[in-house]
Formats: sequence, C-alpha cells, structure tokens
Amino acid sequence: MTHHQYRIGVDLMGCDTAPEDLYRAVLALHEEPFPAQIIFFASEEVSGELDPAIHVVKSSDVILKEDDPIIAVRRKKDASLCQGLLFLKEKKIDAFVSAGNTGALLLAAKTTLKTLPRIDRPALLALLPTKKREVAVLDIGANLSLKPDHLLQLAAMGIAYQKSRGIANPTVGLLNIGTEAKKGTPQLREAYIKLEAMNRDTPVFAGNIEGKDVFQGNIDVLVTDGFTGNVFLKTAEGIAAFILEELEISSRESSFTHLKHELVNLRSRLHYAEYPGAILCGVNGVVVKCHGDSSPETFVRGIKGALRLVEHDFLEKIKSQLKNY
Amino acid sequence: MTHHQYRIGVDLMGCDTAPEDLYRAVLALHEEPFPAQIIFFASEEVSGELDPAIHVVKSSDVILKEDDPIIAVRRKKDASLCQGLLFLKEKKIDAFVSAGNTGALLLAAKTTLKTLPRIDRPALLALLPTKKREVAVLDIGANLSLKPDHLLQLAAMGIAYQKSRGIANPTVGLLNIGTEAKKGTPQLREAYIKLEAMNRDTPVFAGNIEGKDVFQGNIDVLVTDGFTGNVFLKTAEGIAAFILEELEISSRESSFTHLKHELVNLRSRLHYAEYPGAILCGVNGVVVKCHGDSSPETFVRGIKGALRLVEHDFLEKIKSQLKNY
Repeated sequence: MTHHQYRIGVDLMGCDTAPEDLYRAVLALHEEPFPAQIIFFASEEVSGELDPAIHVVKSSDVILKEDDPIIAVRRKKDASLCQGLLFLKEKKIDAFVSAGNTGALLLAAKTTLKTLPRIDRPALLALLPTKKREVAVLDIGANLSLKPDHLLQLAAMGIAYQKSRGIANPTVGLLNIGTEAKKGTPQLREAYIKLEAMNRDTPVFAGNIEGKDVFQGNIDVLVTDGFTGNVFLKTAEGIAAFILEELEISSRESSFTHLKHELVNLRSRLHYAEYPGAILCGVNGVVVKCHGDSSPETFVRGIKGALRLVEHDFLEKIKSQLKNY
Repeated sequence: MTHHQYRIGVDLMGCDTAPEDLYRAVLALHEEPFPAQIIFFASEEVSGELDPAIHVVKSSDVILKEDDPIIAVRRKKDASLCQGLLFLKEKKIDAFVSAGNTGALLLAAKTTLKTLPRIDRPALLALLPTKKREVAVLDIGANLSLKPDHLLQLAAMGIAYQKSRGIANPTVGLLNIGTEAKKGTPQLREAYIKLEAMNRDTPVFAGNIEGKDVFQGNIDVLVTDGFTGNVFLKTAEGIAAFILEELEISSRESSFTHLKHELVNLRSRLHYAEYPGAILCGVNGVVVKCHGDSSPETFVRGIKGALRLVEHDFLEKIKSQLKNY
C-alpha cells in the first residue's frame, strides 16, 4: 500500500524572512521522510532564482505586510497568496501555508474558498502548551468582536480540531474574568447560556475560565473573541519571555546546562507561531497562517502542521462536527 | 520633628482568610517600625474576640463575597466595608484597606466618597514587575467596557500614581493587538487619537502596545478597559505559575538553591495581589483592594502599600494631575 502523495502549497512571500531562506529550509524537508509534495508560490522575481526542477507557481503581484487587506485582495489577484488559495479551491493542493498579510489571507480565503456551512466568521486557532494537555485557543485575532452565536461556532470548530488530534471528548471553556455564569459582558453571559445547551447529552462546556486557570490544562478548547484572544496569547508570550530571560540571567552564574535546555524548549513552545502556526478555521480548505516574523525553522513547522491536518482529515471532521450545532 | 500619626482603616471581613488570622498578622506590624495607627472594622461577632485595647469599629452587617453588590450596599449599610468608607469620608482615617466584595467596595466607595473632579469611572490599578521599571496597569476590573474619554482619565490617574512614586515623566501605552494607530476596535482608535493629543508639550503617550511588549518595561502606565485588563493580569499570573512550576519540577533533580529562591521571588512578584494590592483610583479617598484570597502576609503588604500612598500624598497628586486634562 502506498501513501497518498499529499500536496502542500507554500507561500514564500510576505514573511520578514527572505523567500530564498524559507525556500532552502523547506527544500531540506525532502531529505527527511516527508510524505508530501511541496508546491511553492512566489513572485516572478523570486521564482527566477529557484531551481527550475522544483514546482513553483509564479505570480506577478506581491501583497505586502503593510497593505490594506481589502484593497490588496481586490487589486492584487495575481499575488502568491491569492494564487495559492485558488489552487486550494481547485484541489490542486491539499493545504496552503502562508506567513503573509493576515487580513489579506483571511479575506481572500473567505472569498475564494467560502466559509463552511453554519459558519459566519472564520477564525484563527492556535495550540498552546499547558501543565497537562494542549489547549486550542480561538479566535486569536481574525475577528475583533464576536456575537454569542459566533462563539458557539468557535466552540464547534475547536472541538472538531481536537477530535482530529485524537481527543475523544474535548471540553470547552469560555475565557472570562470570573467563573460564575453572570460574569463578563452581556455578550459573554448570553454565550454562556448557549454553550451550556451543548451539555444536553454529554458534558462539553466546562463553563467560564479565567486566564490564570487556562494553563492548568483542564480544558481542550478555549473560546474567546479575536481581540481578547490576541491579548491573551501575546501576554502569555510576553510574560514567558520575561520570566525565562530573568531566570536565564540568574542561572548564567552556574552551570545549568540541563535547565538551559528546558528554558529554550519552553520558550519555543510558548511562542505560538512555533507549533504549528495558527489554523484558519471555518473556510472550506486547510489554511495555516505562520507568524509574519517566522524563522525558516518555524515556517517549516507550520508546513508540517498543515500536513498533519491533512493526514488527520481535519476539514471533514470539522464539517461533520458542524452538522451537530 | 515627629511623624504625623497616620491612621489606616483595615476591613477584617469578606476575605477567604479568617478575620482572626488577618488580625494577628496586622497586629504584628506594631512590632516593626510602622508609623501608623490601625483601626479595624469587623462584625460584632468577630470583634468580641479581639483585644479590647485595640481600636475596633463594630458592625452589625457583613457583606459576603457572593452578595450582589447593588443589593448589599443598599441594605447592609452597617457592614464593615461601608463603615470603613464612611470613616474615610469623615477623615477619621487616612486610607482604607479591604479584601471584601470588589463590586460592593467599588459601588460603596463611589457613593460614599464621590468620584474626583473630571473622573466618571473609578478604576482598579495594579503595579506589575517588568524587565525594567514597574508598570501601573489600569483598569484591571472595575469597568468591563470604557469609552475613549474614560481611557484618557485612566491615563491621567496612572500618570499621577507613577509621579507619586517618584517617576518624573511617566509614559503611557494603550493595550492593543498591534502598534499601528488604526489597530483595534473603533473605541481604541478614538482613544489613540485623544491620547496622542497629550503629547502637545512633552511626550507622554507612547502609542499602542501589545501584551508581549508590556514586560519589556518601556512604559510606566498601561491603559485598558477592565475586561481586557483583567484577562491580561490573570493570564500573566497563570502563565507565570505554569512556567515556574515546570522549571521547578525540572530543577528538583539537582541542587538549585539559588534559582529556587529566584523562582519563589518572581512568582510572588507576579501575583498581583502581593504588591501592593490594587488601588481604587478616581474616588476621593485612598482605598486599597486586596485579593479575596489574600493570605495574612499579602494582606499586610496591602496595608503597607496603603500607608505608602498616604505618605506620598497620592490623592493630592492625582487631583492636581487631573486639572491638566
């Protein structure tokens, strides 16, 4: 029995790291067992420099980090980002990975791929380490504010994602400033009631959860609007860097080889771009958004994450999960 | 020249820790140089158990943690929390410290003490450690949502607080999901413009700041609404506990005595209740809110923090600062 050869589309443009450096790091994937073909998307200028034997889709436009998403997506239809999504729509690739303009990627994915049935607002999902099992956090920045029904859709997508990772009965927490049902904004109070209705058959909704308790690792999915989720994520990242730096300074005095390794490992796990990049949930296709400041190494991790999603049939799982809501 | 004898009011009720335990810890303050008289506020039941030589104001009601603030403040006028604020209003004490029901304390402080001129919404302020200087974060939970003008008032109060701590030219950052002026909600974009107008004479407003950059320590005041501020604070606390626990586990294997000390020290600095409790800014009086789960030690730190505010003339500084906005 042979593996199906998956095809992963990789956008080389729009990242702080030079396209050539990303390209070299991704090519190195073929030196290890990597059961997928890579199809690159790059501007004509960049692709001219690449090995002609490698599959590169050339584009005449480039969407820049600082571009206005709406204008960019409308005017730069031949940018690598738009081309890649078109390939995904036409099933010429199984997943698309980009470190480009977030707003443009979101908008282009929504218009090109369309949203999944019962989803109004696609969202960005990141997987974070905790004391126990990893928690899927969404939305981490696609939508500044979300209505209660949208938060319910996020819960469904988060559950589907964790199921695709092999977790049998994922539980959901609602990020709030206290655990009682009446805590938070009117929107959150309404979302609480709607989420609670998910517990009819099996316990799914674990209630409100505070930022300090998320890292205990007792829930599988953390639901929040994109503004709060983004603050949550970046705060976690910032305080982690702060503590690790403080401890590194104080540990420099002695020989903490083992601890040093722990520190570096933890730091990279807490930088959300590391593993496996943010997943654009709710559109009809597998799209992974890497951090704009991705290093070649983290970018490659995003590609591996995309392959995992394809292998685990994430898109089908999310579709069937959504039927239940 | 003798010190003026300051009088600090201390609420023994409403904390998870038993009133008697708080009482004993606070009394121990008199064994060290502590230039203030303590006046306790406790229920009749509790105060009967205390040394009759100590100044205790007895109250017949108790506001519980789970009480609805509006109902509690209306019906339990003789609770220790309300009594203490009344003493503060009548200048029988110089500051009031409580670990009781946050909502009730906020509401009672607002109605009893009144808000300061030009302040619509009193807010809670906490001081957090960073890589460099400490940052005053407000609002950390008094108001779920705030209008741009309210955020401007927070900035003024934060500046006044940092000035009272001896910082000559405090700078202000607006917590947001990106640094560009157009980032965030319409409210935040409007607040950005209003805050920028503060830079007419001297640079005060440092722009938007992301959660990950706050701990770099380049700003003195972090302005945010109470919902986001609360999530920010609790997330910082949670991730700190998570990392420190992870590192402690891995460092247990060897003899990391020095590092262990660092870990414990950092953990306590990052638990916001530790130092010096949250300050209720914007009412006409010095009110310190300790965490509901304060230990006797952290409660005492809150009392010391209140004395420092009185000694540094925080209330007058905030009043004069507010005249400039």
